Amino acid sequence: MKKSLIALAVMAAAGAASAQSSVTLFGIVDATLAWGKGNGAGSSHRFQLTNSGYNSSRLGFRGTEDLGGGLSASFWLEAGVNNDDGTGSNTNTNNQTTGTSTATAGTQGLTFNRRSTVSLAGNWGEVRLGRDYTPQFWNRTIFDPFGTNGVGTALTQAVGTSLTGQNAVRASNSIGYFLPARLGGFYGQAQYYAGENQSNSGANHRDGTGYAARVGWASGPFNVAGAVSYTRNSVVGGIHQNNIAGQWDFGVAKLMGQYEADSVGATDGRGWLIGGLIPVGPGEIRIAYSSFKVDFNASPAVASPESSKWALGYVHNLSKRTAVYTTYAHQSNKNGSALGLNGALTGVNESASGLDIGIRHSF
Amino acid sequence: MKKSLIALAVMAAAGAASAQSSVTLFGIVDATLAWGKGNGAGSSHRFQLTNSGYNSSRLGFRGTEDLGGGLSASFWLEAGVNNDDGTGSNTNTNNQTTGTSTATAGTQGLTFNRRSTVSLAGNWGEVRLGRDYTPQFWNRTIFDPFGTNGVGTALTQAVGTSLTGQNAVRASNSIGYFLPARLGGFYGQAQYYAGENQSNSGANHRDGTGYAARVGWASGPFNVAGAVSYTRNSVVGGIHQNNIAGQWDFGVAKLMGQYEADSVGATDGRGWLIGGLIPVGPGEIRIAYSSFKVDFNASPAVASPESSKWALGYVHNLSKRTAVYTTYAHQSNKNGSALGLNGALTGVNESASGLDIGIRHSF
Amino acid sequence: MKKSLIALAVMAAAGAASAQSSVTLFGIVDATLAWGKGNGAGSSHRFQLTNSGYNSSRLGFRGTEDLGGGLSASFWLEAGVNNDDGTGSNTNTNNQTTGTSTATAGTQGLTFNRRSTVSLAGNWGEVRLGRDYTPQFWNRTIFDPFGTNGVGTALTQAVGTSLTGQNAVRASNSIGYFLPARLGGFYGQAQYYAGENQSNSGANHRDGTGYAARVGWASGPFNVAGAVSYTRNSVVGGIHQNNIAGQWDFGVAKLMGQYEADSVGATDGRGWLIGGLIPVGPGEIRIAYSSFKVDFNASPAVASPESSKWALGYVHNLSKRTAVYTTYAHQSNKNGSALGLNGALTGVNESASGLDIGIRHSF
Repeated sequence: MKKSLIALAVMAAAGAASAQSSVTLFGIVDATLAWGKGNGAGSSHRFQLTNSGYNSSRLGFRGTEDLGGGLSASFWLEAGVNNDDGTGSNTNTNNQTTGTSTATAGTQGLTFNRRSTVSLAGNWGEVRLGRDYTPQFWNRTIFDPFGTNGVGTALTQAVGTSLTGQNAVRASNSIGYFLPARLGGFYGQAQYYAGENQSNSGANHRDGTGYAARVGWASGPFNVAGAVSYTRNSVVGGIHQNNIAGQWDFGVAKLMGQYEADSVGATDGRGWLIGGLIPVGPGEIRIAYSSFKVDFNASPAVASPESSKWALGYVHNLSKRTAVYTTYAHQSNKNGSALGLNGALTGVNESASGLDIGIRHSF
Repeated sequence: MKKSLIALAVMAAAGAASAQSSVTLFGIVDATLAWGKGNGAGSSHRFQLTNSGYNSSRLGFRGTEDLGGGLSASFWLEAGVNNDDGTGSNTNTNNQTTGTSTATAGTQGLTFNRRSTVSLAGNWGEVRLGRDYTPQFWNRTIFDPFGTNGVGTALTQAVGTSLTGQNAVRASNSIGYFLPARLGGFYGQAQYYAGENQSNSGANHRDGTGYAARVGWASGPFNVAGAVSYTRNSVVGGIHQNNIAGQWDFGVAKLMGQYEADSVGATDGRGWLIGGLIPVGPGEIRIAYSSFKVDFNASPAVASPESSKWALGYVHNLSKRTAVYTTYAHQSNKNGSALGLNGALTGVNESASGLDIGIRHSF
Repeated sequence: MKKSLIALAVMAAAGAASAQSSVTLFGIVDATLAWGKGNGAGSSHRFQLTNSGYNSSRLGFRGTEDLGGGLSASFWLEAGVNNDDGTGSNTNTNNQTTGTSTATAGTQGLTFNRRSTVSLAGNWGEVRLGRDYTPQFWNRTIFDPFGTNGVGTALTQAVGTSLTGQNAVRASNSIGYFLPARLGGFYGQAQYYAGENQSNSGANHRDGTGYAARVGWASGPFNVAGAVSYTRNSVVGGIHQNNIAGQWDFGVAKLMGQYEADSVGATDGRGWLIGGLIPVGPGEIRIAYSSFKVDFNASPAVASPESSKWALGYVHNLSKRTAVYTTYAHQSNKNGSALGLNGALTGVNESASGLDIGIRHSF
């Protein structure tokens, strides 16, 4: 996403002392014509005018205040926007299934579900409080040619969504620490998030509480990072989400790969992706192959559902802020998996295909 | 509504290249003291401090980016605001009754229910994607002296609200095309909207999908337009909303008229309006008579409910942005109709009256 | 709270005539690490990353238009923000229990629950329409060293929350009048708010309707104010909320006190507070003792629940906009009261303690 497109001049209430301060209104409106088609028993095809096929639609407010002495304070409030129908998105209040639900049709208002944080930062790094992305999500989206959006989104975790529960992407009630920039290419962050249950609420009193960390190293064309995370859950068993990912920019193409290993109690999930971005004039070709498999580790053994996806896309930049794009994806299912694309249903062990055509405008 | 009242200077993240671009924060806060009174059995009177008696209260964000070569990209996110209590408004996600509901008391958050679109425009016109007004709504509101707001709002469709379902005013998941300006007074638009149901969902699989178009011609004091629309509905039968409307500006007064013909399955609705706007110094007198009748076309025949309304109002502009206003309306019902005004109940075939006094402030 | 930090230059749509006008985007993001601990049977301890420990988190839009001749129009739309999880807050649509509810988990969107008003003001004062603070709330928050926020919040009404129902802090559908400034230190306001029920809805047809007024006098170091209010309620009996409060600024410390007398039907509540603010360099020590007691006036007599709280805190200002803070509070319960702190449970007649550590950033 393009950032900082609007920097509003700040006039402090009692003077003009805070010259380095700014507040920014920003957002993305991404509309997608999305076709999906399944095969076999119970399958469907479907057309939707949906959103976020290239970048997630959003509206946000953020700002930074220079406190002097290298210290700064900042805030970030960012809401998801479903611009096909005008609704917002729900959030999760306690990092547990009890903290989220689906609003009745057409009533979901804007929440700052994508991020709502306040930070203090210095040359020692940044402390960030509120609802924020989890460390382990960054490797999945940064090292996915499709940025975990649209029909081409990496399948490294798609089968395991139900496994990884509430914290695959973001956590509420979080306390995060980020290493400062300029550490010779080394970067990292750690996060703690609270489930906030009562101490006397029984076996689940620590559910929703978790820890995560991510470290990486970027140098020249090279960037690699790993992340680990653990969320307590007394109902389904502890949730682990770990991954490692990287990219090499060859100039003519940027090659990416990622490997994800999740577990929920005794159930394991493994996913991987290989893909790339190929610049073409003012545009970019995107390509990826990704796969995910679930092992229930049951006795007697049960089948391990598995899905794989090919995705090919092209983004044409009309400007830094505006792009048109298209993506085609084809997905295979086996061992009981029945994962569809673009909201269409597909049969058990049947393939699915989908096409996105859209426009992304940022501000 | 007044537009573009705030144009925020845009500083592009990587330079000052996009000089023609802008992002605008805009809105209207309109508060209304509203009295309603019914007559006969089961009637009531009621006082409310409500909203939008003159213009619909809203908060919005919109912007345009000049892409060069006559091409531009733009976005528009506009939320309804009930400023008497602070709630937002619900929306409809699929242009069907299944896509909308009423939030529990006091919980409805802001949605961009009024409009949430992204557009590409050139000298060939504009393509617009998202949630937008339906073409057929424009004739009803533009050629109504009361702009479909407040106690004086045109009654050309009021009896038939249940007939015309979810798409009388706006549609989600829409793809719209607008003719370019400067066609010698000729203007027009077409819209397609998707119900987005699964192809295998049975008889209703195309419900909520529809088509609409509007064409008009404006020249000097003269402006006339017609619109047609059709929305698929397997439950109540296809929904047609068609109308024609126009105005002539005589200088001392602007005369308006409209005729609406709707149908839902075998049931027809017919409405018409005649009215006018009379400028008086910094203010304007508004007057309208409108009527609506429903024919069930049942056998044996049943009564055709009918309602008519007289409305008289005055708007006093304190500035371009701020106005105070008042409207009085009196409504008649017959053949089983029991339509009240301003939230008060009236008896079957009884009349109702209502008064608005309010202030409209835009920004 | 700090105000007016961003004043957006306004360019009127049709010229630059409104030079004195402005629209302001403003807000507060306050994140709090909150520990609570109870004692006795059924008690718990609890840790939360919560919000608004010092000032209430919010996002707002407000503006003023100079209409000339001493007249101005203004609007104010302000939403509560739970920045620990991104949700908004619910509101109340009719000043009755039927006008509010709790959204399902994680779905509460932004509403302008804190304030949504439009005003006309002149040298005769201000008329304000919409959802606004009640007059009686101002004494409780202004003359509380902890500003009715966080673990140290005044206990002058805490036991009686259920008594005072929906209008302790704000009212919807309100019409307010404010005396002009510059009356030699004398200030005041009056408010009417509508329950908006149908006239034929039975005994409750005036429920939620109420009246309130506040008058005060500030001169040099001295400030004192009193407020009265009455809200109709046919179910529990009329609700009265009355208080008087004041402060004296001795320079080395600002001493505050308040007394609150509420009633709902036959049940009375009485609360009082004494506290102070002590400036220390760029910071401020805050201290308060407050107490509340409920008398059911039942026959035969029942116990009168009573709670008292000691609170001590320190706020360190990093700038005018950014502060870090901590507060410790200890609460006693007797006669059947079991009021906990910071979301932890405590036993009947048992004490509770709580600690806040947080950061407040305003923009």
